[in-house]
Amino acid sequence: MAAEIAEQPETLARLLTDGAAPIASVAQAVAARKPRFVLLAARGTSDHAALYLKYLIEVRLGLPVGLVSPSTLTVYAARPCYDDVLWIALSQSGGSPDLVESTTRAREAGAWAIAITNAPESPLATAADAHIDVMAGPELAVAATKSYTSELLAAWLLAESWAGGDTSRAEVLPALARDVLDRGYGLEVAPRYRFVERLVTTGRGFAYPTAREAALKLMETSYLSAHAFSSADLMHGPLAMIDEDRPVIAVVPFGAGGAAMQPVLDRLAERGADVLVEGDVERAPRAAAAIPLPETGEDLAPILQIMPLQQLAYAMAIARGYDPDAPRGLRKITETL
Amino acid sequence: MAAEIAEQPETLARLLTDGAAPIASVAQAVAARKPRFVLLAARGTSDHAALYLKYLIEVRLGLPVGLVSPSTLTVYAARPCYDDVLWIALSQSGGSPDLVESTTRAREAGAWAIAITNAPESPLATAADAHIDVMAGPELAVAATKSYTSELLAAWLLAESWAGGDTSRAEVLPALARDVLDRGYGLEVAPRYRFVERLVTTGRGFAYPTAREAALKLMETSYLSAHAFSSADLMHGPLAMIDEDRPVIAVVPFGAGGAAMQPVLDRLAERGADVLVEGDVERAPRAAAAIPLPETGEDLAPILQIMPLQQLAYAMAIARGYDPDAPRGLRKITETL
Repeated sequence: MAAEIAEQPETLARLLTDGAAPIASVAQAVAARKPRFVLLAARGTSDHAALYLKYLIEVRLGLPVGLVSPSTLTVYAARPCYDDVLWIALSQSGGSPDLVESTTRAREAGAWAIAITNAPESPLATAADAHIDVMAGPELAVAATKSYTSELLAAWLLAESWAGGDTSRAEVLPALARDVLDRGYGLEVAPRYRFVERLVTTGRGFAYPTAREAALKLMETSYLSAHAFSSADLMHGPLAMIDEDRPVIAVVPFGAGGAAMQPVLDRLAERGADVLVEGDVERAPRAAAAIPLPETGEDLAPILQIMPLQQLAYAMAIARGYDPDAPRGLRKITETL
Repeated sequence: MAAEIAEQPETLARLLTDGAAPIASVAQAVAARKPRFVLLAARGTSDHAALYLKYLIEVRLGLPVGLVSPSTLTVYAARPCYDDVLWIALSQSGGSPDLVESTTRAREAGAWAIAITNAPESPLATAADAHIDVMAGPELAVAATKSYTSELLAAWLLAESWAGGDTSRAEVLPALARDVLDRGYGLEVAPRYRFVERLVTTGRGFAYPTAREAALKLMETSYLSAHAFSSADLMHGPLAMIDEDRPVIAVVPFGAGGAAMQPVLDRLAERGADVLVEGDVERAPRAAAAIPLPETGEDLAPILQIMPLQQLAYAMAIARGYDPDAPRGLRKITETL
């Protein structure tokens, strides 16, 4: 897991060099079809990449987007009409049978389907009309890390090319990723959380998928209860459970999303919550710990945001005597039928 | 909160008697417009009613449905094209400024908008093209209970009328609700959970919103970490965190959703997890506790499923010395901007 976290500057660079052109041609095919609605299908870590892609398409392309509940097609055998629908399935392994089946059903219902995977020969890749290879290379640790950031970058390249934008803005990412990882912020703050059993992560907009993915990594490797809330939802109930024993990790981007989080950050400070702020750390001057990140534009920020939190998940697992490479009860490809 | 939980047979009966006709005429207006895509906007408890409505529309009407991230409209000022889109905003209070604003923006973008609220004079009700009153009466407890089941029933009536189905199937609900509440299952199992700090809820398909709402109620009133996972997602990572100290509440409907949960229930049994099974209890014969429910059809089941779990949330709060009517840190109308 440590090696795969460290490899991310290279995997991102590879995708930018070798993947941008094939992704741009998929984007051209999408643009030519003029889809009116987008459905995204994914599970686990890839579901967080799907959520990121949802924000990108909604904000950049103005199309309505839905995250699919595969069970409506596979369990309840719904017979939908998907004309004018672009279906995008995301999966590192490309092997989840329910994603393969729901993608096949979606095409039968009229959708044009793209698979985004780290496995070009996988059943999912071949079940779709077009495939995007995230080129992260073999991932051996059960907790996905480099394949996640490569999925994010592939999603960004797809949306940006589709919108006719300039993808060169992403070229700065490998160097920034190297810098963020070298600083080792996640390793540094890990001792604070050695004995924590319950934790909340929060973010808003583009940063919300990071909060969800960070919570999943912590649960997978350290078995703690890590709860992710959009900062807007946090105000609607779960704020009651924040107390001195339940620290908060707040992913606060530079820009509009960070500004929208200010009221939540202020409420947390009022309540004396123990907050680790990541990103635009100036927004939480009373935070107990801070991980500053470089400014990249809010849409690209998630690709860097997760890295210190991957390090944190890794370091917490080691400190607790767990093996982050072999979490109990997990298999790499999950066969949900 | 106890009084409002107990009132549900009456509030459901009132909605069936007085609400079915107005909802049917909204459904007629929807059907006449032939929307091609549905977007649902909600937060907190109402978000779980929205998720239920998503399954209903996908399965019963075969339309693609998306749960909206209001921030794309309110924080990032996306300018979408929502022609042929039906927008449905759900909110007990009808007072959340971000829902009002995003509903206004959605209409400007071309959507036809319905508001489902418990407050016909609210800003949200008046911001939409049509309003559905869930008629639950004043709700004073901060933790929403009766307004939730009334939202579910209103959602079911809308989808069923829109599909041209027979809504009389719901008429059995008030009597069944009375029976389920009188049995007091939730109160009875509460002592088992007196000292639990972390808990997982799970369900699939139509039952997944119940798992999410139950987790939220437990968090709001007893401040414990209650994590909801779709049973499919539970296999993708979080299963690692289930151990002897982390009980599971599994909402298992009769029908296809329950059958699809069997592999997860078997894995939990293998792992020796402490499971409370609710619904089709035969699917988990080794469960530590069981709450049997009457068979109602999987689509209607969520309206009953939540009731014992509301009782559980109430009884756990009392047993822990908390005031379920005044959770710390919460306000009834949450003003997210």
